[in-house]
Amino acid sequence: MTERRRDPITGQWRIFATDRQDRTFLPARTECPLCPTLPGHPSTEIPEPSYDVVVFDNRFPSLMASPPAPSVMRTDLYEVEPAQGATEVVVYTDEHSASLGDLSTDRIARVVDVWADRYDQLGRRDEVAYVFIFENRGEAIGVTLHHPHGQIYGYPEIPPVARLELDTALAHLGAHGTCVLCDVVARERADGVRVVARNRTFMAYVPFAARFPYELQVTAHRHATSLLDLTDPERHDLADLLRTVTRAYDALFGFPLPYVMSVHQAPTDDGEWLAVSHLHVEFTPIHRTAEKLKYLAGSEIGAGAFINDTSPEQTAADLRAAVPRSNLERSLACP
Amino acid sequence: MTERRRDPITGQWRIFATDRQDRTFLPARTECPLCPTLPGHPSTEIPEPSYDVVVFDNRFPSLMASPPAPSVMRTDLYEVEPAQGATEVVVYTDEHSASLGDLSTDRIARVVDVWADRYDQLGRRDEVAYVFIFENRGEAIGVTLHHPHGQIYGYPEIPPVARLELDTALAHLGAHGTCVLCDVVARERADGVRVVARNRTFMAYVPFAARFPYELQVTAHRHATSLLDLTDPERHDLADLLRTVTRAYDALFGFPLPYVMSVHQAPTDDGEWLAVSHLHVEFTPIHRTAEKLKYLAGSEIGAGAFINDTSPEQTAADLRAAVPRSNLERSLACP
Repeated sequence: MTERRRDPITGQWRIFATDRQDRTFLPARTECPLCPTLPGHPSTEIPEPSYDVVVFDNRFPSLMASPPAPSVMRTDLYEVEPAQGATEVVVYTDEHSASLGDLSTDRIARVVDVWADRYDQLGRRDEVAYVFIFENRGEAIGVTLHHPHGQIYGYPEIPPVARLELDTALAHLGAHGTCVLCDVVARERADGVRVVARNRTFMAYVPFAARFPYELQVTAHRHATSLLDLTDPERHDLADLLRTVTRAYDALFGFPLPYVMSVHQAPTDDGEWLAVSHLHVEFTPIHRTAEKLKYLAGSEIGAGAFINDTSPEQTAADLRAAVPRSNLERSLACP
Repeated sequence: MTERRRDPITGQWRIFATDRQDRTFLPARTECPLCPTLPGHPSTEIPEPSYDVVVFDNRFPSLMASPPAPSVMRTDLYEVEPAQGATEVVVYTDEHSASLGDLSTDRIARVVDVWADRYDQLGRRDEVAYVFIFENRGEAIGVTLHHPHGQIYGYPEIPPVARLELDTALAHLGAHGTCVLCDVVARERADGVRVVARNRTFMAYVPFAARFPYELQVTAHRHATSLLDLTDPERHDLADLLRTVTRAYDALFGFPLPYVMSVHQAPTDDGEWLAVSHLHVEFTPIHRTAEKLKYLAGSEIGAGAFINDTSPEQTAADLRAAVPRSNLERSLACP
């Protein structure tokens, strides 16, 4: 059973994919399906002895180009659709124990180029309305493969969080005549107190109303609508700041911090969203201290009201203190 | 710092309460603050040698009747408000190792009566617009006290999930002239395939588009808008079905299943929502098998698109098989 069903209580579409229940789960190092294929480590999903970045279709897809017919009949109340779309895996490096922040800025820029290319290619497909690039990192987030990788989903509609952000930005545009993220990034530049790192093109800051204690937004200073809207030097600046942020995360508590990274870009089917689509990358780590997690529980799951036990100004200071000194100096020198 | 901040990107209000960072965390059995006060177990939060049900203000509140002034100035872009509202703790029983399902139906009905009374009392307060009754159960959900208890939040506005459900129900009412949950519960009664248990007043079923594998909705057959809208026999029927469901959860994998339980009722400030407010209790356990959890990760946190690796029809069958036989027979005999 692989299909999409609409929940009549919230109006949201949800994805069902029962084959995923049996997907590869925390395999031994020597069984890693994302490692290069080598003598002593045969038959991985990547038939190459070494590689820089690799993208391929997820072996346990939740969305696909040619999905099976739904298992139930559609009614007015209970709508169901084939699970059209795309799910891809992006392997960042052939080094099993590395992470995004371990790569050089040039290597991360190659990952950014691959993201931009897949955003372009998947966005052209009829069955894809929104391209969502993300990374789940760490067992505490539910990662089932440790090898450093991210994922790309091509949803057949604009998913709920993106839709909420776009609708809210549209209301802001109507009320103030400006893009809300352009206003936010200008305000964060002026305030400074929640800024963690910055360069010419991007700024990393703890959001004013962060959901998670060490949440960060990495936002373009200018109104870039997607990765495709960035010049090569701007993509390099994004890679630079992603490296700074992920290294600060790992320095914060002295272990690789589990997080979700989400790239928010313009929908790909409809140009009318461009005025309110402002490229930003969200990092949502779930630790609230070195030992304790921020769990999503009653208030978050049942009511949708996030409770944060920390002050964004304080966690920004904690993260600034964890930024590698050379990056910090460059940040401070930046206009 | 205890305050509410509005996120300009989503328009959602979030709650900040830094004192909660130091709240009591998984104390030893002999230090449990929710146990009765007895020789050898002095100075708990409940100065009684025994009790049935107890309600009191949360010692580490995120919302309160007289909150402090916010830590930052409000601007047009970054709105901030005092954290007005209420947070209460409901202790179900003085038995430290019991759970809701261990209590008799009459005892659970007393808990339901307390919920109804607090819904009434908190709902009358000027600073409370929505009363949210919930339980976080199990360490995997992030519970910090094991003693069986739930919580009640009095939010100063209708929180995002409730608002989404009400808006969606309003659109359904406009399109079809009916309450969407009245339609859902009639359809589930007719289909039967997702029903887990039922009695005269309530029905428990896996939602057609469930987010979590073993998610359940416990919904009134008739259009009851809140617990206050139930007769005493109807409250007893709710208690009966809550007992059946929680016992089935504990039998499912042979251990107390961690879950969030959320009671969805009418907002308390505005009667205009009554036509679309249909009392239902949601259970969202996070296990997808006995050993594996359904984590909220990239697709859920970053995009808001839930992926469920199970079929609601199959998990309903699993749960039916876990319902205690006497309850199952009563369910089947029910009209």
